[in-house]
Amino acid sequence: MGIAQLNPVEIIDLIDRAEAMIPISRQQKTLPNLAGKTQINLFFENSTRTQASFEIAGKRLGATVMNMAVNTSSVAKGETLVDTAATLNAMQPDAIVVRHGSSGAVELLSQKVGCAVVNAGDGAHEHPTQALLDALTIRRHKGRLNGLTIAICGDIANSRVARSNLILLGAMQARTRVIAPKSLLPRGVEQMASEVFTDMREGLRGADVVMMLRLQNERASGKLIPSVREYYRFYGLDAEKLAHANADALVMHPGPMNRGVEIDPAVADGPQSVITEQVEMGVAVRMAVLDALLDKEGEDA
Amino acid sequence: MGIAQLNPVEIIDLIDRAEAMIPISRQQKTLPNLAGKTQINLFFENSTRTQASFEIAGKRLGATVMNMAVNTSSVAKGETLVDTAATLNAMQPDAIVVRHGSSGAVELLSQKVGCAVVNAGDGAHEHPTQALLDALTIRRHKGRLNGLTIAICGDIANSRVARSNLILLGAMQARTRVIAPKSLLPRGVEQMASEVFTDMREGLRGADVVMMLRLQNERASGKLIPSVREYYRFYGLDAEKLAHANADALVMHPGPMNRGVEIDPAVADGPQSVITEQVEMGVAVRMAVLDALLDKEGEDA
Amino acid sequence: MGIAQLNPVEIIDLIDRAEAMIPISRQQKTLPNLAGKTQINLFFENSTRTQASFEIAGKRLGATVMNMAVNTSSVAKGETLVDTAATLNAMQPDAIVVRHGSSGAVELLSQKVGCAVVNAGDGAHEHPTQALLDALTIRRHKGRLNGLTIAICGDIANSRVARSNLILLGAMQARTRVIAPKSLLPRGVEQMASEVFTDMREGLRGADVVMMLRLQNERASGKLIPSVREYYRFYGLDAEKLAHANADALVMHPGPMNRGVEIDPAVADGPQSVITEQVEMGVAVRMAVLDALLDKEGEDA
Repeated sequence: MGIAQLNPVEIIDLIDRAEAMIPISRQQKTLPNLAGKTQINLFFENSTRTQASFEIAGKRLGATVMNMAVNTSSVAKGETLVDTAATLNAMQPDAIVVRHGSSGAVELLSQKVGCAVVNAGDGAHEHPTQALLDALTIRRHKGRLNGLTIAICGDIANSRVARSNLILLGAMQARTRVIAPKSLLPRGVEQMASEVFTDMREGLRGADVVMMLRLQNERASGKLIPSVREYYRFYGLDAEKLAHANADALVMHPGPMNRGVEIDPAVADGPQSVITEQVEMGVAVRMAVLDALLDKEGEDA
Repeated sequence: MGIAQLNPVEIIDLIDRAEAMIPISRQQKTLPNLAGKTQINLFFENSTRTQASFEIAGKRLGATVMNMAVNTSSVAKGETLVDTAATLNAMQPDAIVVRHGSSGAVELLSQKVGCAVVNAGDGAHEHPTQALLDALTIRRHKGRLNGLTIAICGDIANSRVARSNLILLGAMQARTRVIAPKSLLPRGVEQMASEVFTDMREGLRGADVVMMLRLQNERASGKLIPSVREYYRFYGLDAEKLAHANADALVMHPGPMNRGVEIDPAVADGPQSVITEQVEMGVAVRMAVLDALLDKEGEDA
Repeated sequence: MGIAQLNPVEIIDLIDRAEAMIPISRQQKTLPNLAGKTQINLFFENSTRTQASFEIAGKRLGATVMNMAVNTSSVAKGETLVDTAATLNAMQPDAIVVRHGSSGAVELLSQKVGCAVVNAGDGAHEHPTQALLDALTIRRHKGRLNGLTIAICGDIANSRVARSNLILLGAMQARTRVIAPKSLLPRGVEQMASEVFTDMREGLRGADVVMMLRLQNERASGKLIPSVREYYRFYGLDAEKLAHANADALVMHPGPMNRGVEIDPAVADGPQSVITEQVEMGVAVRMAVLDALLDKEGEDA
C-alpha cells in the first residue's frame, strides 16, 4: 500500500511501464488491456486532479470506471470502512482506487477485499503514484535518479507526498534533502532524508531538483508559522532563492499550487518548471500501475 | 412500480433471470444485451450501494449509464418532479432508475416518461429490487420461499424494505413475522404479516430467516424509543437472541448496518450471516430487472 | 466562445448538422465519430440538464465522457482557473465543455489549453448551444429564422440565454424584441434588439415566437421587482397575454421553469409550447457542436 513495499527493481519496472504508456496517452489511443474490468474510484477526500487522472488512466486501458462520491454516501450514515469495503467487494470489481484521510485506511481496506487496491493517498502516510510520477518526470530530464540531489521544501510534517518521495528516492539512492521551518519538520526526519535544512538558500545549494509542497493553509497558518507572508519570505520559491540551486535544476510541485504562498508564479511558469509535465506523467503512471496490478491478478487466478 | 404489481409467476421469472446472471457477474464478463441503450440513475436521495449496484448492473449489460446528482441540480432551483421527468424523457433514455424520498414519486414520474422506469426506493413505500435480491438469497440457501418462516425485525413503520419484502414473501406463501416495539409498528401491519411480535425472542422462535432492518437513528431515536442502548438490549440481534431461531437460520440485513445498534458485529460477521451475499445478489437482480424491462420495451416497439 | 464569433453561414451549418443528428438520437443509435476521444465536462455551476445533455451527446458519438464536480475540487482549495486548465490539458483530453459563473472565464480557459473548448454558459455573457437549439427548434416549426418576429421576455439583464439568442437571431435577420420591466433591461439593449417593450401585451402583438426566461428569484425578487405575484401579473405568460401574439406563435423556455412565476402551467403544457422539444434539440445541437469541433481539430493536426 505504499512505496515502502516496493524494492528498487519493482520501482524501475513501474517507471519503465509508465514511460511506455506515454505515447499511448499522448495520441489518445486506448489499449484493450483492461477491457471488461471494473475499476472503482473510492475517494473519501475530494481530489479533482487525482481522481480524474485515475479515471482517464483506467478508461484509456478500456476499463469500466465508477466514481464513488463517499461524502454523500452511506459513510455519512455511519457505515464502517470495513463494511464499505465488504459491500464493494461483493459487487466484484477488479480494482479499487482509494483515497482516505487516515493513514493506514487503504491498507485496512485492502485486507478486506479480494481485488486489487491502489493507494491514491492515505492521510499523512503515503501517496505512492505521486512519488512514481515524480520519479518518472525526473528521470526523463536527468536520465537517472541515483546520485541526484533532490530538495523537498515546505510542509514536510503533514505531507504524504514528501514521505513517499523520500522513501522512493532513498531506495533509488538519490541524495534527499528536506527544507522546512522546525515546526513543519516531523520527528525522526533525519532517518528519512540524507540532510535536513531550515535555511532554504543553504538547502537549495547544488540541488538538481527542487520539489515544492503545498502549504496546508487551513492547518499550518497562524498556528505553526507566523503568517503566509512570513512563510513566503523564508520558504517561498522565487527566482532569487532558486538561483542557489544548480542552473538546470527542475522545479516541481504536486499541485494544486498556492501561487504567491509557496511559489512565485514567475517560477511556477518559468523555464525550469516541469509542473504540468508531472500531471501528464501522472496519467501514464496510473495506467502502468493499474495494468501491472490487474495483470498480476490475472496470473494469480 | 413495486412488488405489489407483480404476481408470483413474474416474481419467480425475475429471480430465475437473476440467478442466471450470477456467473456472468462473477466472472466479470459483460453481456451485449443493452449495448447502445442509455440508463439514467436519478437519485434524489443518496445511496452509494444501491446506485453503484445499478451502475455496475447496467454496465455489465453494455448500457451507457449516467448518474444524476439531483441534490446539486435544478431540483434545488425549484423545478417540479414532473418537469425533471419531461426533461430527461426528451433526452430519450431507455431506462430511468429512480430513488426518491416520497412514496409514489416513482409512480408519478413513470407516468410522464416514455421509457422504462425502475423503482430504486420511494419513501416508505417500496424497494422492489431489495425484496427480489433478498428472495434470491434465501432461495439459494433454502431452495424455496413458500412455507419458510421469515422474521423481519426493527423499524417496520419507516421501512420500504420491510414493506416490499412482506408483499413479496406473502405472494410467495412464506410465513412472515414482524418484530418491533409498538412505536415502530405501522397501523394495519396485521394485514401485511402473518404474525406480529413485540418480544424478539418469541418472534425468532422457529424462524428460518432473520431479516434485520436499519434503525433510522436520526428519526427514531429519542422520540420513539428510549435510547439506542435500550433498543439494542431488546431488539439488537446478538448470539443469545439468535439462538431462539432455527439453528440454520439465515441472518440478513439490507445495509448499511449500524453495528452495535441493531446487530452485534459478531453476528453480522458470523457463520449464519449472508449479508455480503445479499450485495452480490443485488447486482444480479438489477441486471435481471434491467434486462427484462428493456427486452419488453423492445417488444412493444 | 460564443455566438458572437460565428457568421450566418457557420450558424446555418451547425443547425443543419444538428438536424441531421436528430434521427440518430431518436433511435438511440450511436455514431463512432468520437470513438477514442475524451470529453471533460467541467461545470463550475451546477446544471443537471445542460451537463446531462452534453454527456448524452458525447456518449452517442462514442466519446469517453468525464464529469468534473468542481465545487468539490481543488478550486475550493484556491487553485486558479488557469492552473485547473493547465492541469486538465496535461491529461490530454480532446474537448472540455465548460460552464462558469463569470463572463469570459471560458474564453480565458480556452487560451490555456490545446484542445477544443465548448462554452456551456459563462456568467451573463453567452450560452451559445442554447441559442443554437432554440434556432433549430424555431426553424423546424417555421421553416426559417429571417423575418420572424421573436419576443424574448423576462430577466433580460441577467440572462446569457437572452444575449446569445439576440446575437444569433440578429445575425439571421430575425426581428427581435425584448420585453421586461425597466429594472431588468440591461444598458445598451437597444443596440441588441430591434425593439424594446416594457408592456408585455404590446410586445407580444404579432410575435411568431415567445421566449420566456427564467426569473432568477434569488437575485431579482424583492430588490428589483416588487414581488413575484406582481411580476407574474405583469410579465407572467398566461393564455390572455399569449392571445396577443400570433395564433400560431411558439412558446419557448430554456428551463428550469418557475411555474406560476414567469409562466402559467397551462401555457407551459399547452398546444403552442415546444419546451420539451427544445430539450431534445439540445442533445442534437451538442452532438453537432462536438462533432464539428473535433473534426476541425483533426484537420488541424
